[in-house]
Amino acid sequence: MASEIPTKRQRSAKDVPYNLVYWPGIPGRGEHIRLALEEAGAEYTDTEGGVDEVLTTIKDPGDEINPPVFAPPILKHGELTISQTSNILLYLAPRLGLVQDVDQNPDALYRVNSLALTALDGLSNEPHDCHHPISSGLYYEDQKEESKRRSEDYVKNRLPKFLSYFERVLASKSSGDGPWLHGGSLTYADLVLFQCVDGLKFMFPKATAKLEKEGKHVGVFALHRAVGERPRIAAYLKSPRRQKYSDGIYRYYEELDIDP
Amino acid sequence: MASEIPTKRQRSAKDVPYNLVYWPGIPGRGEHIRLALEEAGAEYTDTEGGVDEVLTTIKDPGDEINPPVFAPPILKHGELTISQTSNILLYLAPRLGLVQDVDQNPDALYRVNSLALTALDGLSNEPHDCHHPISSGLYYEDQKEESKRRSEDYVKNRLPKFLSYFERVLASKSSGDGPWLHGGSLTYADLVLFQCVDGLKFMFPKATAKLEKEGKHVGVFALHRAVGERPRIAAYLKSPRRQKYSDGIYRYYEELDIDP
Repeated sequence: MASEIPTKRQRSAKDVPYNLVYWPGIPGRGEHIRLALEEAGAEYTDTEGGVDEVLTTIKDPGDEINPPVFAPPILKHGELTISQTSNILLYLAPRLGLVQDVDQNPDALYRVNSLALTALDGLSNEPHDCHHPISSGLYYEDQKEESKRRSEDYVKNRLPKFLSYFERVLASKSSGDGPWLHGGSLTYADLVLFQCVDGLKFMFPKATAKLEKEGKHVGVFALHRAVGERPRIAAYLKSPRRQKYSDGIYRYYEELDIDP
Repeated sequence: MASEIPTKRQRSAKDVPYNLVYWPGIPGRGEHIRLALEEAGAEYTDTEGGVDEVLTTIKDPGDEINPPVFAPPILKHGELTISQTSNILLYLAPRLGLVQDVDQNPDALYRVNSLALTALDGLSNEPHDCHHPISSGLYYEDQKEESKRRSEDYVKNRLPKFLSYFERVLASKSSGDGPWLHGGSLTYADLVLFQCVDGLKFMFPKATAKLEKEGKHVGVFALHRAVGERPRIAAYLKSPRRQKYSDGIYRYYEELDIDP
């Protein structure tokens, strides 16, 4: 599953590949990890054992150094097993060159992590709860009315609030030159925001098209395009490794496609 | 606001105090930061400017190095301004001695961060959504029926699932000796779990009392007691700095106090 362009980083990774474990068949939260690995041209495996591998990994009692994990995404790298999307990205970013040089500028990681966590909160977890407002254990069909109510609130209030925030970040001095959120170069927060905007365009096509047409959040939509045009990301998006949206975080239900 | 016992760490912090900015009047997400600072005996200020300070900080456009922040809790330390509970704890933990020695064992931070993030997800964010399942912008009174339905699901399914997970962590080899989650010594993940259990006992007294009485999740409840007995934490909990639960994350509504 190595990408097309070999990198220095790939060669310096001591030939230990990254192993991602995530539910097969959906981009889901695993997609944030995939995009980081793909952008860096890192060698990785992606749940080659399918659903069984996910279940086995969750049931694993851990070992002398690693606690058991609660849920995927899970990253295994050498002796290390960790979970939680933002945490895996935090581990990978300095290794994959997806954050400013942490030796020279150690605080950059915390600034970029703030941005990634805020995007995951408001543009990934909250959209998920739009189709599961009562319980993640119930089917969508058993909470349809509540989903409609929550989606209306999300599209009218929360979505513009979060997109406006990222527009302010892009307009701030700390974003530097170019389309990126922090320090004038691509970081993993940009990849996270790309995936969030991409999923939201799939889930709420009416609302997102209206915002774009009205010229709102111009910087956020420009960042989405700029990430999609990165050579390795563009190649990945066309490859069979990029899974289609279906029953994951971002879902299309006609009745939830609110026209604001 | 320094605690009673001075520490080496406090003296080595270059006399730069930590400034926490959080909504006054509730423990909320800020409480996780306060517990870390209090356990370490660190010098800090806590939103001395009240609500106005929170609003001013959120409206601040950032500067050359810091992006604007979306929401509190916010930590200012010297030139740094960062947000997001788990991110602030990640920054503080190595400075306050609340994680294993990161120079000797750099991966411990990612393991502990996994645990803290999982507790915040399932035992803080999900309880919050029990009284705000449709919209954080609507009053509880406008989503009472949905809150009841969500709380029933939470108490019957999600709460035992997360508590069982942490019980497994405590039983794992990586937890080491003693009551703590990881590596045989107190880390900030223990403080996070303490605050979560403490809030859940306030919010769902019937369900949590039943679990304790039935001898379920013994290790989790023992950890809650062990943290509460730490000398600095015990002194803090008795001090006026410890705010009472009210209209924050953990709320008591009789109709949501599900008897499972």
